[in-house]
Amino acid sequence: MSLSLSDLSQEVLATQYAVRGPIVTRARELERSGKAIIYCNIGNPQALGQKPLSYVRQTLALMQYPELALRNPQAFPPDVLERAAELLKSSGGGLGAYSESKGLRIVREAVARFIAKRDSDGSLTLGADPESIYLTDGASKGVQSVLRLLIASDRDGIMIPIPQYPLYSASITLYGGRQVGYYLDESSGWSLSRQELERAHARAVAEGVTVKAICVINPGNPTGAVLDRDNIAMVIAFAKEHGLSILADEVYQQNIYRPEDKFVSFARVLAELGDTDVCLFSFHSCSKGFHGECGQRGGYLEARNVSSEVMAQITKLQSIALCANLSGQVLVYLMVRPPEPGEASFDLYEKEKREILGELAARARLLAEGLNRIPGYSCAPITGAMYAYPRIKLPFGRSDSEYCLALLEETGICLVPGEGFGQVEGSAHFRTTILPPREQLHQVLEKLENFHRRWR
Amino acid sequence: MSLSLSDLSQEVLATQYAVRGPIVTRARELERSGKAIIYCNIGNPQALGQKPLSYVRQTLALMQYPELALRNPQAFPPDVLERAAELLKSSGGGLGAYSESKGLRIVREAVARFIAKRDSDGSLTLGADPESIYLTDGASKGVQSVLRLLIASDRDGIMIPIPQYPLYSASITLYGGRQVGYYLDESSGWSLSRQELERAHARAVAEGVTVKAICVINPGNPTGAVLDRDNIAMVIAFAKEHGLSILADEVYQQNIYRPEDKFVSFARVLAELGDTDVCLFSFHSCSKGFHGECGQRGGYLEARNVSSEVMAQITKLQSIALCANLSGQVLVYLMVRPPEPGEASFDLYEKEKREILGELAARARLLAEGLNRIPGYSCAPITGAMYAYPRIKLPFGRSDSEYCLALLEETGICLVPGEGFGQVEGSAHFRTTILPPREQLHQVLEKLENFHRRWR
Repeated sequence: MSLSLSDLSQEVLATQYAVRGPIVTRARELERSGKAIIYCNIGNPQALGQKPLSYVRQTLALMQYPELALRNPQAFPPDVLERAAELLKSSGGGLGAYSESKGLRIVREAVARFIAKRDSDGSLTLGADPESIYLTDGASKGVQSVLRLLIASDRDGIMIPIPQYPLYSASITLYGGRQVGYYLDESSGWSLSRQELERAHARAVAEGVTVKAICVINPGNPTGAVLDRDNIAMVIAFAKEHGLSILADEVYQQNIYRPEDKFVSFARVLAELGDTDVCLFSFHSCSKGFHGECGQRGGYLEARNVSSEVMAQITKLQSIALCANLSGQVLVYLMVRPPEPGEASFDLYEKEKREILGELAARARLLAEGLNRIPGYSCAPITGAMYAYPRIKLPFGRSDSEYCLALLEETGICLVPGEGFGQVEGSAHFRTTILPPREQLHQVLEKLENFHRRWR
Repeated sequence: MSLSLSDLSQEVLATQYAVRGPIVTRARELERSGKAIIYCNIGNPQALGQKPLSYVRQTLALMQYPELALRNPQAFPPDVLERAAELLKSSGGGLGAYSESKGLRIVREAVARFIAKRDSDGSLTLGADPESIYLTDGASKGVQSVLRLLIASDRDGIMIPIPQYPLYSASITLYGGRQVGYYLDESSGWSLSRQELERAHARAVAEGVTVKAICVINPGNPTGAVLDRDNIAMVIAFAKEHGLSILADEVYQQNIYRPEDKFVSFARVLAELGDTDVCLFSFHSCSKGFHGECGQRGGYLEARNVSSEVMAQITKLQSIALCANLSGQVLVYLMVRPPEPGEASFDLYEKEKREILGELAARARLLAEGLNRIPGYSCAPITGAMYAYPRIKLPFGRSDSEYCLALLEETGICLVPGEGFGQVEGSAHFRTTILPPREQLHQVLEKLENFHRRWR
């Protein structure tokens, strides 16, 4: 075997992706040897029993095999038949043909309408341009394209929250850039302050780093914190002052669990401020929300205040692997174009949506309360996204990676240690999803408590 | 707008991907302004009217909406119902859940059986290991992962054929490596000689390049040439002598049109030679062959003679964007596990397959003959893949890029100029697919001839 690690790209070797790191590899091994594993490491709702939406799957089934519409039209509601027909007509080859590199125009137009509707109200009308929208294989690929574009040298830095979703740290390392971490404040519900952003930026600049962009995850992963309008305006002002682009990871925009919280998009606040300077890249996905269609890899990226010559570079990056998968593209369409009141699928869709979101909210409460009852654990309220990120007290000198590995071996519960997300030095955490069904969540909590009492 | 081209990655800016370059962008513009475009630039069969296979689409429709099996079992053949049931059972969440980073184990096992069966005969039994197989979003992503891994510095070179498929040149530029071109000999049907490989290698070494790997496309894209066993053994011997890895792009393995030609895989010849030294990465796809399922982005990568620590790096790269899309993964399964004799779908599947491949062979003949009848054109026989790559005589000082652009403006025919694939200096070519229906091919040929007579 003539190829050894020393022959390989140093950037690849240095890259780490904890959500699927060594603990998950070990879990797969244990599973193959017969141990029952509860995968709490990843936000993968349908692997934990969440059902897909009928409207979505009926349309995709028709797209795969349009003959069904002739053979069994009565098996499909009329609005589903209509959606499938219009998608087949305007895609020029259905699911089997490459689309334009940016993705099907009909889908990008629907995304533009969705953004405009989501972000407009009596006080402000926001538009969106289908040519600034790119359909991607999940949000991850969109994030990677933008980071790839922005990192031009090993002095280029990207600001990321600590704790962060490891897609960011992994991709920045892979593209040879520098992570510039800014800390979220656990003691005030993982809040974000201008002071901390300035501290992190100044320190990076002092080290000779050219800071290019700031990534914000809202609602937060793994923290679950929901940013309000003023927070977002603060980030935009900060970015403007320092000439940074903003990457707004908004994939959990539907996962907000308290009535007092509300999703506010970066696009909306940018428009309120009338800013035409700050480049904004925002990301959305079909994998989260109430769809949970992780395996179908649907997502989009929207660019604002970005010149057409810069956008052409994104198009080129997309074009090399031709286009995002078409089922994912269609899923984006169905996500941004749900059945409307009066359409045949409307009632069922609303019912399925309500049940999923209601269940997620209940599990978020149950999990946070349960974690806080375990002596040695403390968990901020889970106000958004799909995770708990409790702080845990460990014996002196022990790491959360060791903890999570030992927990896996003993109980079969697969978590991601805090080391994968980043944390204040000396603290220890893990990330777990809120997704297991309630009965299983109770078991998880019980096992965690028993394990934690005894682990030394 | 604070972001300008000078802020961006130089590698991204330098990257070119001709198959979807400026000519295609112009074609889209013309199309939106009402001009009828014939897209001959890309191997996208279903966009040009090729029908998907019933077996494949029925199974995927069931995977999307399993309730169909309860509501209308009679709409599906029993083998389709069975395949969908086993895939749903073993995928732990169906199309909606992330799979393992490498892809669903059931699919990788089926790929391993497919390779073993394809490459074994009375004289040799070849095995394949599911753990060395990675499911990818089309073959392109697999090629990109391996190139990403291998290119460790800007002195690292990758040998690619000239002409080549621009995925290779684009990705090598993007990852900051060096292209080391070796010429295929047009005068002898685009053949590949050891002498030319040695020349190219020696020249690169003299320039201070560390050559890491050689890419071979078999059957050739854009050339259509089919390598025989001795050719492949020669490449392996060359790679062994110089310590190179091999990237074998075998996505057109089903697209061979003359009875005297036969697809021989690099894996087979490696096994015949008993070689355990040369690292081989081979690629296959659902986008070509007779499936033509480009939009579904299914493909796989198989590694041979590659250590588990190197493979773990590929797994990590895959894991950052979680996994390949599940419809594509299922498509790979269906491609490598067609209906067997005696199963309900067998006859229809064989009929559809025969018709598609027969039609492609007829179009390949028709196109090559037609191109050779045009004064100033000469085209090698199209023995494999999906393209013609004719040599064209142009007025002194004019490029094939200018030619293709003028042709597009006048006739609406969208081709890719030879400059995008590489060619002997002073020669001019274009690539066109064989995919338009025969009637349309006749029109294309007529328009090309008229245009060529007049263009100055």
